[in-house]
Amino acid sequence: MAKKGTAEERDLVQKLWKMKFAAMRAPASGSATKHSIPDVIAGNGSIYLGIEVKTTIKDVIYVDSAQIDGLIEFCNIFGAKPYLGIKFKRTKWLFLKPENVERTKSKNYKIKKDYAIEKALELDEVLGIDKQIKF
Amino acid sequence: MAKKGTAEERDLVQKLWKMKFAAMRAPASGSATKHSIPDVIAGNGSIYLGIEVKTTIKDVIYVDSAQIDGLIEFCNIFGAKPYLGIKFKRTKWLFLKPENVERTKSKNYKIKKDYAIEKALELDEVLGIDKQIKF
Repeated sequence: MAKKGTAEERDLVQKLWKMKFAAMRAPASGSATKHSIPDVIAGNGSIYLGIEVKTTIKDVIYVDSAQIDGLIEFCNIFGAKPYLGIKFKRTKWLFLKPENVERTKSKNYKIKKDYAIEKALELDEVLGIDKQIKF
Repeated sequence: MAKKGTAEERDLVQKLWKMKFAAMRAPASGSATKHSIPDVIAGNGSIYLGIEVKTTIKDVIYVDSAQIDGLIEFCNIFGAKPYLGIKFKRTKWLFLKPENVERTKSKNYKIKKDYAIEKALELDEVLGIDKQIKF
């Protein structure tokens, strides 16, 4: 099972601030309501992000579908793009849209390290910062 | 000095959800970064709010200017409207824009109960819900 990773959440929040986004972690105890909330929220006045943070030392991460349903619902109401923000050991931060994540037979989400490295977005791509070479 | 009021923050967050906003409290320990963060963030896809929550049983609330500077800075970067969300004993939630709050000689913010009752917005006004009578 993927760990919550408070230290990693803090690292992500700091990276977001450096990229000129205002960012905030969710309370450790959750929302104290019935509503799911993302681990991290960020915005820069035009892009708003809700990020479910998962970190692991293994090569695969499983995430309960209920958790992602909650992320998507929050983001739909709030007005934010939902992302899974994933940190494997010795990878950068990798970001996947929920719809691009493989599902198990029981409809939970399964993210393999190799797949994430190949398919996921990096932070500056998620933040709308063009990585193309400028001529 | 105004109390933080975790119970009141939760109450406000629940009211926001009932009004079709997605809302989240800040972590109790703050952001663990040097950046100030609002007590509550909320959004509905078109309106985004950063709210500094203050509650008191007295008839006046003082707020340090540094705290409001932090609120405004966060909201400017995030893309949200900054508000002081104030709860006096036996009043509804009252909302003031920082620029509409009286300052002391030392530039801190001072909110008298009578002034707030007269001048502050109520929650549905802040959320863009028109209270005018519909013909």
